[in-house]
Amino acid sequence: MELRGIHHIGVAVEDLDEAIATYERLFQAVLEHRQVLDSQGVEAAAVLVGESRVELLAPTGSDTPVGRFLARRGPGMHHVAYATDDVAEALGHLRAAGAELVDEVPRPGLFGLEVAFIHPDAVHGVLTEVVSGG
Amino acid sequence: MELRGIHHIGVAVEDLDEAIATYERLFQAVLEHRQVLDSQGVEAAAVLVGESRVELLAPTGSDTPVGRFLARRGPGMHHVAYATDDVAEALGHLRAAGAELVDEVPRPGLFGLEVAFIHPDAVHGVLTEVVSGG
Repeated sequence: MELRGIHHIGVAVEDLDEAIATYERLFQAVLEHRQVLDSQGVEAAAVLVGESRVELLAPTGSDTPVGRFLARRGPGMHHVAYATDDVAEALGHLRAAGAELVDEVPRPGLFGLEVAFIHPDAVHGVLTEVVSGG
Repeated sequence: MELRGIHHIGVAVEDLDEAIATYERLFQAVLEHRQVLDSQGVEAAAVLVGESRVELLAPTGSDTPVGRFLARRGPGMHHVAYATDDVAEALGHLRAAGAELVDEVPRPGLFGLEVAFIHPDAVHGVLTEVVSGG
């Protein structure tokens, strides 16, 4: 398994338009993608801060994973995603290393990427994603 | 102001040795630096996951910023730091853009870097740092 580095950090927000505007104003961020993913109850925007990507995540309703996160913890950092060439191979390594997985097999994520999540209990409270691409 | 991208993400952990071992085992992370910073009540390790840096932060006592964070929220993602060539100039831009700052002037941070923190209320709940270096 080879992880290339941080693909993005995911941030839970209440209002996507406001959050995009904040990142543009404070950090001169550039909007890369924006997408509603009904199956995951989320509207997301990828913004670039310099060469790095921040995924802003707003819930489409309160009874969604991000909606429940906001109710429990408030807005803030939600997950970190590491890029890899082969998500399935990375999952095999993580399983062999004893990590509890949320996704046993890769699944379609935002922006056409293949993703899988590792349970935060396996990573000292950090919800961690592996994602295809650079 | 120019931010180059994510310099590191900061993660609050209970036990630094255990956390380093987890990142080595799961993500083939490589330990880059390790330091106790008594003035900030923290023992920190910088580990590289691929080309990216994760700063693992353990408190030196319960009555420290990271100790209080752990008591309130448990272990997990603590902050994100963006790299810039000029922290003072970045602070000037952020102040002009209306961001509430934790540090009005740059101060010495971990590993010999110059740092400043922006209040999470200014960034939708994300404690955000600007840091000198690449």
